[in-house]
Amino acid sequence: MMITQLGSIFGEFQVASIISGKELSQQILSELQSEVFTIKKELNISPCLAVILVGDDPASRVYVANKRRTCEEIGIISKAYDLPASTSMKELLKIIHELNNLTDVHGILCQFPLPSGMSEQQAVMGIDPAKDVDGLHPLNVGLLATGQPKFVSCTPLGVLEILKRYKVETAGKQVVVLGRSNLVGRPLSILLSQKEWDATVTICHSKTRDLESHVQRADIVIAAIGQPNFVTGEMLKKNAVVIDVGINRLASSDPNKKGKLCGDVDFEAASDKARLITPVPGGVGPMTIAMLMKNTVLAARLQNCSQPIKNGF
Amino acid sequence: MMITQLGSIFGEFQVASIISGKELSQQILSELQSEVFTIKKELNISPCLAVILVGDDPASRVYVANKRRTCEEIGIISKAYDLPASTSMKELLKIIHELNNLTDVHGILCQFPLPSGMSEQQAVMGIDPAKDVDGLHPLNVGLLATGQPKFVSCTPLGVLEILKRYKVETAGKQVVVLGRSNLVGRPLSILLSQKEWDATVTICHSKTRDLESHVQRADIVIAAIGQPNFVTGEMLKKNAVVIDVGINRLASSDPNKKGKLCGDVDFEAASDKARLITPVPGGVGPMTIAMLMKNTVLAARLQNCSQPIKNGF
Repeated sequence: MMITQLGSIFGEFQVASIISGKELSQQILSELQSEVFTIKKELNISPCLAVILVGDDPASRVYVANKRRTCEEIGIISKAYDLPASTSMKELLKIIHELNNLTDVHGILCQFPLPSGMSEQQAVMGIDPAKDVDGLHPLNVGLLATGQPKFVSCTPLGVLEILKRYKVETAGKQVVVLGRSNLVGRPLSILLSQKEWDATVTICHSKTRDLESHVQRADIVIAAIGQPNFVTGEMLKKNAVVIDVGINRLASSDPNKKGKLCGDVDFEAASDKARLITPVPGGVGPMTIAMLMKNTVLAARLQNCSQPIKNGF
Repeated sequence: MMITQLGSIFGEFQVASIISGKELSQQILSELQSEVFTIKKELNISPCLAVILVGDDPASRVYVANKRRTCEEIGIISKAYDLPASTSMKELLKIIHELNNLTDVHGILCQFPLPSGMSEQQAVMGIDPAKDVDGLHPLNVGLLATGQPKFVSCTPLGVLEILKRYKVETAGKQVVVLGRSNLVGRPLSILLSQKEWDATVTICHSKTRDLESHVQRADIVIAAIGQPNFVTGEMLKKNAVVIDVGINRLASSDPNKKGKLCGDVDFEAASDKARLITPVPGGVGPMTIAMLMKNTVLAARLQNCSQPIKNGF
């Protein structure tokens, strides 16, 4: 159902199946909706996410609106904290600390980027790790890195969920992660080489020499470098699985292309080589919000269960 | 001075230079001795390490004795907490918490393994991250993983110090780390792929297929899997740098070999291929204790400086 054949088979020629992050995220959200219902009934609480937005960055506004709407769709209470760009770091931390102490708030998300002059690091460190549904607090990153993950940041979690639900075998496979960001490349490279996934992972970045040779031997390529169409079809091994985390806006002189969203992978060319590929948009993107909801539900459970429960993935 | 030529040059034939962790660690300890002297004078405090030993594991006794002796040699006060094997987890945690609150104790080390039935994870989580000179607390691992390291565990730190002091270029180089342990392989693979080191790192483990092909392309091989003589000369690329973290005791029927220490690398064969290699014993081992001292000095400074200082490496 979720696998779309791009075209038919002509002799040797077969194009990749396309992963629908849109459909998959809808399925997960519907599962989470049932879980929220159960939590309300069993624990007599309503999972609640506080979303802090500082300033008026237009892209951030859109992201935050999406997150809040998705909360409502599945029965999670969303508390909005829209603060002016003039907010001081001290004021922001005061609000975060108040939210840490509210027992009916289970998750806290502070939308980044913050206005210039404010410290994202301080904001992250201020959030109670038990409410850090974005998985950015160093304690949560450390739990992840030592094989005891609790809150994993949402995009890596979305990628893992795609691999799991599309039954992509990772054990013993060569995974090449392009990009070493704290948000995506780093946590994914750590998780995929742990026992649960058992892949052999190479993490590539701007200083990597002969990057093509690494991509060429990869059974699974994860691109998270923020460079439009960086991964070409020629770089890929036949039948590779390609996960494109990039979301770039094309700056083209062609008015049909200008402003169009594209990933880090040349989708059309890559589709001829890959076995399975995520599109941009509609691939990893929708999974990220779904995983934020998943983490919020997990946080609500963990804060209201005397029994330790298995973590979310 | 610290590089020993194993033999002379016969035409094309050249054997590896041997890294002396013993000499290097002595040099570092002597530097630290001066720093301890300075700290005593400037800050009017004596750096102090509390070493907890539970039970009577003979190997642990030896390690702990070495650590305490090294403390004394360079002027660090060593507080001994030798507890019987019958100590309960609750009692251990009580002692750890007391040490957390003592302002004249700057570092806390709990020697592992703990007697069976005790939780090492709980012990680690109990130590104040500011006194976690072993760098095992998830908060410290998370700081490391997000590029803001404070206390890095001692063996990885020792390996990095070797690479730095022997001027091994890592930027753009291919590093293959064998082993994914929380103690060695994991932190090293993370650190070496960060901006400060800029290597392209592949982490291999028991589920890696065709491990030889990874080792073969490596400019730097770091072996930390605990299997005697696992890395053969044939596996290595010519002129590779080989860091052997393994410490294994040979179980041989030959009385001359039985009980002898050896690493994860077949030292003699590897020396013919490598450019630079660490022996076992006398390579990484002595560096580990030196780095424990370094972390203790860093902890004493951080706890007594109003000014934030650059971390130890």
